[in-house]
Formats: sequence, structure tokens, C-alpha cells
Amino acid sequence: MKILQVDYKKELETASKGMIMIHDPKLLIKLILRMLVSKVKIKHAGMILYEPEQNCYVLNVSKGERGFKIPAGFVQFDEKNSIIKFFTKKEFRPLRFNKNAIVTEDLNKLIWKESVVTHGNGTQELLQSMGQQMQMFNAVACVPSYYQRKLLAVLLLGEKEDGTRFDQNELDFFAALASDAAMAIRNAQLFDDLRKESQRNRDLFLRTTMVLSSAIEAKDKYTHGHTERVTKYAVAIARQMVANGSANFDEAFFESLYLAGTLHDIGKIGVPEGILNKIGNLSQEEVIVMKKHPNFAMEILQPLSELKDSLEGIKYHHERYDGKGYPDGLKGEEIPVRATIIAVADSFDAITTDRPYRKGLSKAQAIEEIRNNIGIQFSPRPAKAMIELFEAGKI
Amino acid sequence: MKILQVDYKKELETASKGMIMIHDPKLLIKLILRMLVSKVKIKHAGMILYEPEQNCYVLNVSKGERGFKIPAGFVQFDEKNSIIKFFTKKEFRPLRFNKNAIVTEDLNKLIWKESVVTHGNGTQELLQSMGQQMQMFNAVACVPSYYQRKLLAVLLLGEKEDGTRFDQNELDFFAALASDAAMAIRNAQLFDDLRKESQRNRDLFLRTTMVLSSAIEAKDKYTHGHTERVTKYAVAIARQMVANGSANFDEAFFESLYLAGTLHDIGKIGVPEGILNKIGNLSQEEVIVMKKHPNFAMEILQPLSELKDSLEGIKYHHERYDGKGYPDGLKGEEIPVRATIIAVADSFDAITTDRPYRKGLSKAQAIEEIRNNIGIQFSPRPAKAMIELFEAGKI
Repeated sequence: MKILQVDYKKELETASKGMIMIHDPKLLIKLILRMLVSKVKIKHAGMILYEPEQNCYVLNVSKGERGFKIPAGFVQFDEKNSIIKFFTKKEFRPLRFNKNAIVTEDLNKLIWKESVVTHGNGTQELLQSMGQQMQMFNAVACVPSYYQRKLLAVLLLGEKEDGTRFDQNELDFFAALASDAAMAIRNAQLFDDLRKESQRNRDLFLRTTMVLSSAIEAKDKYTHGHTERVTKYAVAIARQMVANGSANFDEAFFESLYLAGTLHDIGKIGVPEGILNKIGNLSQEEVIVMKKHPNFAMEILQPLSELKDSLEGIKYHHERYDGKGYPDGLKGEEIPVRATIIAVADSFDAITTDRPYRKGLSKAQAIEEIRNNIGIQFSPRPAKAMIELFEAGKI
Repeated sequence: MKILQVDYKKELETASKGMIMIHDPKLLIKLILRMLVSKVKIKHAGMILYEPEQNCYVLNVSKGERGFKIPAGFVQFDEKNSIIKFFTKKEFRPLRFNKNAIVTEDLNKLIWKESVVTHGNGTQELLQSMGQQMQMFNAVACVPSYYQRKLLAVLLLGEKEDGTRFDQNELDFFAALASDAAMAIRNAQLFDDLRKESQRNRDLFLRTTMVLSSAIEAKDKYTHGHTERVTKYAVAIARQMVANGSANFDEAFFESLYLAGTLHDIGKIGVPEGILNKIGNLSQEEVIVMKKHPNFAMEILQPLSELKDSLEGIKYHHERYDGKGYPDGLKGEEIPVRATIIAVADSFDAITTDRPYRKGLSKAQAIEEIRNNIGIQFSPRPAKAMIELFEAGKI
């Protein structure tokens, strides 16, 4: 028995060492409770945990065999809850003095004492309410843990499988463990917050870029929604290229492609409205100005060195596979892959939307045109992916 | 003596509990080493720590009394360093087997053994080089710490102040401590990385917004650099308002003000170039269109709900203190403070820059105009701050 005890302590200590490397709070809580139940051989365990975002305490429970008599999932407590009150309020400090944990027997003794010498300040009611809660949770011990005098968590322990009671030695050990666990969970929560904040900043960046690009596009009266559609098509093409095995793109690629789609026509801000909105054919001089838009884009975006990968996609989205495109007349596989994808997406949208001088063609007709231009205007891999998307009814 | 030992262990254990809540890696390393030196009473301590960003090991040293015989600050090691090799390479596993630490005496024994039965695989050279390094660092013990089989750190311990040797019990304790410390440091590093990433995303968002706004502004031929200058003036005014005690802005305020400055004229994208670039007076109808630009901005930016605070500054930057501005004719203190700041910054830049129909006035003349319009066009607090900035030679 003694050896068994030492064993689970060693195991739990080792396990608790790795805890701070787990940065998913929910997973961490689950692991800790599961570990307690399986190693200490108790019927179930729970943890009341402070949630700073909501400024309240939340109950997390293990899926022990008998479990708690409360609905699975979360229960929220505020500071008026008797367990929280007992472990936080100054006036109860004498009652919890020198105790790393409160077991049911302690609590019953306190209630009995209070019935003899009543303090008359609600202590008895509090203790009774606490006892009822422990009963409801099927818990025979509460182990609080603090960090910098703040109550971080209360560990709730169910009965041991073998029916014996927890001795003081064990309770002290659980107190240390609860403290480690609570701190690891707090650490994971902070990590999670930071990760979410970073994600929010990234998301805001992407959305703002789309909003501003769309606003610029609005200058070109006949292309409403073009930027968003091209971006959507481009991402779908890239996904299809991964699906059909013709490419192997990572997450960073998709993001840079999204940005390239978002910003592909940004250079049109440098083209006078008279040319952008002209009905009928452009003069040769006007065509020259119009074809400068990829280079205008480079000038505009040049301070954003982080966007390097996207810039390729923007600069070369009017190149052609046969080398007859602009601005540099790149040929075949010289054309950066993001640009070849945007070229297909851009053409598909241009063909299928109405222009002042003609109605848009159907999607089927646009696909036919792309098919006829594989290896001429369009790079084969993205063009084939676009055709597959159409045939699968995905665009 | 025994009691003293227990004491420092208890203290170090307690201290090490809080380590994971310290998320500044450099501070954490400093605290750990300082703690070791003061509590264990050793002459100095050092830690060779794995730096994932640079994929190398970096030496951090305490400022012990005698210190190491190497320059203060950092020294980088790669995996060819003999200490790193000894604790990582498979072939040396037998030599470090069952050892939580290597002390100088162990090393000397190993070197002696090797000189008798040479493995001929460079073991002796490695051990000798390791000994030289420990001598150089004035270290009498090396304590490695691993996480998931990866060497995270090697703790280097100098001699004890009282001249006694470390016993095995102590070395085991240091091994546990080094492991906790290394994990806490790794945790802090990950935190730091995430924080930097979040900052980079925020920074990219702010810069991209400025780049795109400036590109839009370029449509208005006569206001080159206006957006950047207005933003700069606005931030300077707000800072001056804090400095002269007339306001109390936090960091979030400054960021939202920066964004409001960046985007204050974004609505001009909705104004035809013919009106924007017209030389001479605008017709009544043209003025009506021009005055819509704050509302155009609201339409454009409406999907970006996070920018709520900035939007006030954008929408109302043409309001006047006397209520004669647009779009809503707000009066006095009804005008949001960000808008009152941008109004001053915007006017100052408009007055001091050349326009097609007139040359810009001097800064002194612009300040005079602002002074004459305090409480009429301009809100007093930002106007006074602008005047103070000019008088202090800061603009």
C-alpha cells in the first residue's frame, strides 16, 4: 500500500512537469482530471477554475464512473458560491487555517462546533451550503490552490475506489499538485488569449485589406465584387490542385494567395478613371497606361516587404503561358504559380460578368474558353483545376 | 548544515512554482541564476540554453562575485560543442548513464579510464575539451535538463562559497530544478514568440492600411503625403494633450487615433476625380458630393466593426466647434475627441501645403489661423496643444 502510494505520487509529479508545455486549457484540464482518477484510483474528480475573461469560477468534471450528479459540461459560480466564499473571504480564514484541504469530516466538525458557539454571521449557513454542494458533487474533499493570494482553483475529489479515507499526507500532496495544475492551466489560458489576439490581428489585417481593395475597385464601375470573387476562385483552384495531387501547398501559401487575390488589381488606382470606365475600345496609348497596373501595384506595395510571396502573384497575373503577356513576357514555368492561379481566376470572372459593351458569358462558355487556351494563355495545372471545379459543380 | 540544506531546497521549490508565470525569458533566466547564487551560496552559476529561433545553444551567466572568465552577455554554441555533444550524442550515453549531473571529479575519472582503454572514437578528446570548458567557465558541475528527449539546457554551477563539494542528494535536487527552470524558460520563449507574432500582425495591419490609404490619396493629385502628415500631427497633438494635462489617453486610444488619421480621407475614393482635382471653385452640386466623403468612409469601413473607436474620428473630422461643420452639425463637446484632434491636424496640413490655386502658408501663419478659430472652428484642447507643439519647435 505504501509503495503504491509513492508510485502514484512519482507518476503524477513526472506528469505534472510536462503540464506547462500543454497550451490548450481544455485539453490540459481533461488530462489532469483523467490522470487523478486513473492514478489515484478515485471514482471521479472535478476542478472549479477561475476564468479571468468572465470573472467567475467554472466547474470542470472528469468522466468518472459515477460522475457528479450535475449535467456534464460546465457550471458557473460567482464569488457568492459557498465553496468559493469559504476559500476566499477573510472572515473564514480561522476556519481554514493551516488546512491544505477540507474533507467532509472536517466540515461536519465545523458545522457541529458552529451549532454550539454561533458566530451569528452566517457561518453556519455557509458551512451547511458547502456541505450540500459537496454532496451534490459527490466530493469528499476540496483542495484549494492559490497564486499570489488569488484563489485559482478548487480541486474536488470523489471517494477512493478502495473505500479508504485520504490521509493528511495525501491531502498535502494533492494541494501541491492542485497548485501546479492551476498554474499550468492559468498559463495555458494566457497562451490561448495571446494566440486568439494574434489571430484577431491577422484576421483584421486580411479583412481590412479586402475592404480597402474593394473600395478601390469600386472606382472601376463595371467590376463590382470582382476582387472578392477572384480571391475566392483562386483559393478554390489552389485547393483543387492539392486535391488532385498536382501541387502541395501549405497554409502560408494559401494566405499569401488570398492576399495576392485581394490586391491583384490594386495598381488600377494609378489608372485614370477616364480609361478605367471607358466604353468601347481603348486607344493604343490608353492600353499602355492600363497595362502599367501591375507595376503600379509594385510601387504601392513596395514598403510591405512581408508580402513578398503575394507580390509575385500580383505582378505577374497578366503573364501568359506562351510568353505574350505583360509586364515582363514571362513564359511557361517561369511564371510564379500564384500568378498562374490568379490569371485563371481573373479571366473566368472577367468572362462571366457583364461589361458595359457586352453581357457576361455563361460559366460553361468561360470554362470552354479556358480549356481551349490551356498551354496558350493559361498554365495547365490551374486551368485543369478550374475545369475540375466546374465539372464537380463547385463553382 | 542539514537544516540549511532543507531550507534552500524549500525556498527554491516555492520560487520555482511561480516561474511559469514569468513570461519574459531574459528576466526569468536572470532570476533563476540569481536565486541559485544567493540561496545555494555558490560563487556563480550559468545556464547553456537552447534557442529554437537560432537553433543553437546560448550561454547565460550570473553576475557572481568572481564570474566566468568570458565576456559578459551571451556566447553561442552549436551541437559540435563538447558539452552539448556529451549530453546529446548517443555514443556517450554509457558515460552519462544514471547521472543527473557531471562534476569535475567524474570527468577526471572518465578521462583517466579512457586513457587506459581507448575507444579511439574521439571520446578522450571530447572529455578533455569538456574539462577545459568547465575550467574556463569556472564550473565544477554540469546539470543537463531534457524535455521530450531534447536537451533544453545545461546548468553550470560554480564552487560553493564554503568550499565543500556538492553531494549526490544536492545534485539530484539541482537536476529537478534545472528541469523545471528549463521548461519555464521554454514556456517563456514560446510566449515571447507568440507576443512578437501578434505584434507583427498588428504592425502589418497598421502599415498596410497606411499604404493603401496613401495609394487612394494619390488620386487627389495635390495632397501628396497628406494622410501620413495628418496622422503624425494627430498623434503629436494627443501626446501634447497628455503632456499638458488636458487629457488622459491610453495606448488603445493612440492606436485608434492613428487608424482614424490613416483612414480619415478614405471616403474620397467615392468622389469623382473631376471634382477632387478641379482647379478653381467647386459648384454647389460638387460641394455636396465632396461633403459626402465622411459618409462614404462609413459605408466602406462598416464591415470592420473592430474599428468602432476610429470611425468616430473619421466620420466627424469636418465638424466644427460652432456647429457649422458636416456631416451632422455636431457642436462643442458633442464632437468625439478623436475627430476634434484630426480636424486641427487636417486644417494645419491643408493650410501649409501648396494647392493648385495657391501656395501653402507658413507654419506660423497656420498656427495664427488656428489660434483665431479656437472655439469657433476648432475645439480648444487640441488647438491649444497644436499651438504648444509649434511654440516648442516640435512641428
